Amino acid sequence: MIRIGIDVGGTGIQIGVVNHEYTIIHESSIPTRINIPFEEQVKHITDAVVSTAEAAGYSIDDIESVGVGIPGIASAKTGEVIKCTNMGWRHVPFREVFNQYLDKPVFIDNDANVAALAESVAGVSAGSSSSVFITIGTGIGSGIIINNRIWSGAHHIGGELGHVIFDLDGVSCTCGNHGCLERYCSATALIRMAREAIADCPESMILQLVHQDPAKIEAKTVFDAAYAGDPIALSVYHHYIDCLAQAIANVVNFLDPEMIVLGGGVSKAGHFLLDPLVTEFRKYVLFNDQPLPQISLAVLGSEAGIIGAAMLS
Amino acid sequence: MIRIGIDVGGTGIQIGVVNHEYTIIHESSIPTRINIPFEEQVKHITDAVVSTAEAAGYSIDDIESVGVGIPGIASAKTGEVIKCTNMGWRHVPFREVFNQYLDKPVFIDNDANVAALAESVAGVSAGSSSSVFITIGTGIGSGIIINNRIWSGAHHIGGELGHVIFDLDGVSCTCGNHGCLERYCSATALIRMAREAIADCPESMILQLVHQDPAKIEAKTVFDAAYAGDPIALSVYHHYIDCLAQAIANVVNFLDPEMIVLGGGVSKAGHFLLDPLVTEFRKYVLFNDQPLPQISLAVLGSEAGIIGAAMLS
Repeated sequence: MIRIGIDVGGTGIQIGVVNHEYTIIHESSIPTRINIPFEEQVKHITDAVVSTAEAAGYSIDDIESVGVGIPGIASAKTGEVIKCTNMGWRHVPFREVFNQYLDKPVFIDNDANVAALAESVAGVSAGSSSSVFITIGTGIGSGIIINNRIWSGAHHIGGELGHVIFDLDGVSCTCGNHGCLERYCSATALIRMAREAIADCPESMILQLVHQDPAKIEAKTVFDAAYAGDPIALSVYHHYIDCLAQAIANVVNFLDPEMIVLGGGVSKAGHFLLDPLVTEFRKYVLFNDQPLPQISLAVLGSEAGIIGAAMLS
Repeated sequence: MIRIGIDVGGTGIQIGVVNHEYTIIHESSIPTRINIPFEEQVKHITDAVVSTAEAAGYSIDDIESVGVGIPGIASAKTGEVIKCTNMGWRHVPFREVFNQYLDKPVFIDNDANVAALAESVAGVSAGSSSSVFITIGTGIGSGIIINNRIWSGAHHIGGELGHVIFDLDGVSCTCGNHGCLERYCSATALIRMAREAIADCPESMILQLVHQDPAKIEAKTVFDAAYAGDPIALSVYHHYIDCLAQAIANVVNFLDPEMIVLGGGVSKAGHFLLDPLVTEFRKYVLFNDQPLPQISLAVLGSEAGIIGAAMLS
């Protein structure tokens, strides 16, 4: 028996065949199409599920379940997608329509929750019963695991760590509020801090690395320049680490999970990101004379979406 | 059969006999004594349990269980009190010693968690399976209920909402950090805001109510003056409500419980506090076009400590 994991993204939908050792044994993708009716979108997905299973040498009968991770909000209970802007979905009966085309148990959840589940079962937080997965990219998302289950909230709107107020009346956010955590802790924030810093110091290595074009600065640019010892980049890096350490401490002070897992593009900076955080977050934890959550880098990378979706039950 | 609930406070220890309808049928108290050995402290408590049960007309055999809420951190699993400054306890085997004097099932947890449990079973959040209880007094504490159980964290250090960073590099806190949430949302914060406001406006009714002595300002003073229409008090009140609305939204964005319950001294302001919050918190919630948690005032008051402790299991 196999499980199918589906990762719905903005440009493509990844479909993976996952075995009982949580390994993707075959994978395919179809483009995200939004200008067709919802029923047709689902039909494309179910067709791809069948063809992907068959390409891996399995029949429909071998499919134990299908799980779907979506960038949006969904009810794991009713199988309804409440909101998924990328697909143009609002209050669509996903499970119901899916089952009209393919009669298999189908489960659906938010993509950050799904990645959190994947890491907590087959990744770095395996063996823990509670964890918070923080994905640090353009924005900040998070997935919460409590007692080995996804906690997405009573109304499926939890895990939005990126939009927790972190700096009263602070930097304005795309959501319309001010001082949201992701304005200080995302890749976007790091890039903003770097641009602000080089405005006063045009000699920074950050600018050299992007051939004097600030529009080309990426998170990696800042980390590379800081790693090389550029003083401007180092000062931005230290400030960013300090913000992220406070964000991690916030999760500890409020929820105290067994582990905190860092994923997303920024986590590719590896130990240059992780090591100072592991030291720095402690000073912002109230009971920091106690055993504290372990902070780790995610290990499943982009596979977490498919593996975690396949694990949904 | 009866249950015993114990509320350990800074000046006294309240012991209550609680029936199966979650009603306190008899109550007594003993003074908090810290200058005696731990074993003696516990002996005083067990003696008081027996005498309180007897005074209510019950024998030791009628006691089903004993629960204890402490201002500090404790392991519900091992029965160890990890830290309780009021009693001078650090890593003491509470359950073990308690059982040497009284052989009954004994349970222990943090006092905010215990109050959260009480409200979620016998109070305003009864019937909900997830809630966050926020106690707003000198500081800010919180207790988290998920799937009908207290979630105190993997290391029993969760629920410290008051020390979540809410304003980067903001007002300095007693804990040593800056910008902690309780510096903006506690009674202490409201009083600080009022003192700052009247410094520029000595004609404020706030000062009249305390006979021109700023040291006498309490949370109630500000609410009373605002309710009476004093413009300075109203401006402080609106700012405070805005901060508290953002704090509530933070809990919604991250954890999305079914209900949020407001307790502690400040909650005595009743609907003058609650009504604007219920309107204001929505604008800080990311998915505010969805059904949102219900925000309510606690109803059990100071009895929550005893009732919740008696419910521990």
